[in-house]
Amino acid sequence: MTKYNSMIETISLAHGDGGELTHQLISDLFLRYFHDEALQPLNDAALLPFPAGRLALTTDSFVVKPLFFPGGNIGTLAVNGTVNDLAVSGARPLYLTVGLILEEGLPISVLEEVIVNIATAAREAGIAIVTGDTKVVEHGHGDLIYINTTGIGVVDDCINLDYRRIRPGDVIICSGSVGDHGLAVIAARENFGLEGLKSDCAALHTLILPLLENFSSTVKWLRDPTRGGLATTMKELAQSAQVNIILSEEAIPVHDNVRGGAEILGLDYLYLANEGKFCAVVDKIAVEDVLAFLRRHSLGREAAVIGEIKKGSGRVFLRTALGATRELYLLSGLQLPRIC
Amino acid sequence: MTKYNSMIETISLAHGDGGELTHQLISDLFLRYFHDEALQPLNDAALLPFPAGRLALTTDSFVVKPLFFPGGNIGTLAVNGTVNDLAVSGARPLYLTVGLILEEGLPISVLEEVIVNIATAAREAGIAIVTGDTKVVEHGHGDLIYINTTGIGVVDDCINLDYRRIRPGDVIICSGSVGDHGLAVIAARENFGLEGLKSDCAALHTLILPLLENFSSTVKWLRDPTRGGLATTMKELAQSAQVNIILSEEAIPVHDNVRGGAEILGLDYLYLANEGKFCAVVDKIAVEDVLAFLRRHSLGREAAVIGEIKKGSGRVFLRTALGATRELYLLSGLQLPRIC
Repeated sequence: MTKYNSMIETISLAHGDGGELTHQLISDLFLRYFHDEALQPLNDAALLPFPAGRLALTTDSFVVKPLFFPGGNIGTLAVNGTVNDLAVSGARPLYLTVGLILEEGLPISVLEEVIVNIATAAREAGIAIVTGDTKVVEHGHGDLIYINTTGIGVVDDCINLDYRRIRPGDVIICSGSVGDHGLAVIAARENFGLEGLKSDCAALHTLILPLLENFSSTVKWLRDPTRGGLATTMKELAQSAQVNIILSEEAIPVHDNVRGGAEILGLDYLYLANEGKFCAVVDKIAVEDVLAFLRRHSLGREAAVIGEIKKGSGRVFLRTALGATRELYLLSGLQLPRIC
Repeated sequence: MTKYNSMIETISLAHGDGGELTHQLISDLFLRYFHDEALQPLNDAALLPFPAGRLALTTDSFVVKPLFFPGGNIGTLAVNGTVNDLAVSGARPLYLTVGLILEEGLPISVLEEVIVNIATAAREAGIAIVTGDTKVVEHGHGDLIYINTTGIGVVDDCINLDYRRIRPGDVIICSGSVGDHGLAVIAARENFGLEGLKSDCAALHTLILPLLENFSSTVKWLRDPTRGGLATTMKELAQSAQVNIILSEEAIPVHDNVRGGAEILGLDYLYLANEGKFCAVVDKIAVEDVLAFLRRHSLGREAAVIGEIKKGSGRVFLRTALGATRELYLLSGLQLPRIC
């Protein structure tokens, strides 16, 4: 049963007009769950202290369909996705904004469930929700809920994750199995009846920030392989750093049900989105220590060396289990819309 | 004719999947127009220097319909709306994020026109676009373009716009005519054929920041009366500060075509959105100087004293031209969706 203090059970256009119903939504629903000290719901901007260091700023819109899927939902995704973009930039997450585009007719109970998940995920990630915005569009011009989150973090001056530090011989580590999020969402959306799939949606900063504290000189570059999956992230890295990358198919962690499910659906798990994994480029001398460090954390238990940096000009090759080599490109033509 | 370097003329779902078409959209379209030094389009977060002072953070989603209207469009609105939220908080605008939710089938030429307007408005406002995000939803689940912008600014330590500084006897100034934006958008959407209406969409920081420099002790509070219009903004102020407000109908600047058009449509211009106006609470001793200062600026030429702060408990009264008094409340039931 909804705790929203009103007889109105669905979102109407008047919830977005800035008047009485907008106020009621803010005070009865949002403020019930969002109560960070710095939150100033009726001010135009939140005024915030900012510690010494560089400011990291990231924004993401979330249009995932369905809103709820095994392992997560649009609310946890909107928080963790932005927290992770900060973390792989070496930033300690500080502040989060939440912008909602609601579709007329959205049940308030569904909105409430999403808000609860946003609040819980933010609290768990230690990021303060400080300001927000709500718009309502007519039925048929949205899809229940779209969320934008923008995150601010602070990066210590000693952290440098510039790809220009990458050298041939460096090693690529993946923090865990790939493809879980993308396949879980597609399976939930299409009712494919694949069993046991679960999004890996998680906030990674509790693993990444200590990693950077302990390995600041040997962990050279980080990225979370979300849309486009591991293959696209590797291709982007190879192109930016102007190196080649050799990946080992056998070394890439992938759960059996993801491998099997992807095969059934004709999808390549290397291109499926992840929401709780990161890739790191690490100096060879530190690989064993980094692996041991990652595996001690629940989010890094399946961490593995998956490849190596070579001299080159932006190409990515996969050594298959059979000993063949195939080249990987940016995701192209594979249409898996709305997985985040 | 579009300058987008491709044979593809409309947005497809593949433009949102993080792969080749996403990259092409970023490199061929967005980077053609967005070229702030700090922009790092393929990084997860922008890393930015931040000057001493408090950080102001604001977020807004824009779902205005139609996308283009006399005096502005969704692009100028998305930049100026966020710049103004920073400015009325006393912040110097620094950084802007742009999150796009595009509907499948959107003509690239329309997207390009919006992007050009975003880039131009940001350049004119001196705010740097530093990161962004693009998602695509299926045809029928959006409305061409929704935009989220999040703005960061810095507030000098000497600035204090806390409503707790407000005292009975303080005066309310409005920087210009009210209702222009809301009525122009509604008229454009519904093809009402009302002539000469034009949104007041403009970035106000070039007026507000010098105002605060010159009148830091006597300008006590600022707000831009957007959604819900002047009346809602005044009601919010009265409730926050726990004062009453007396407004003079005759003193409120309103253009004749807005007054007449609103009357024809049965709308109250006090509740129509503005996108280039602000209200200030000013110490009585400084009123003439503040008015003179505002009127020297093109965005403040029609500035006027519109009311006064009284002891009270959150009520707003309008003295009408006929000498009667009517109470104003939060916008309620008047449904003017999607005006910003």
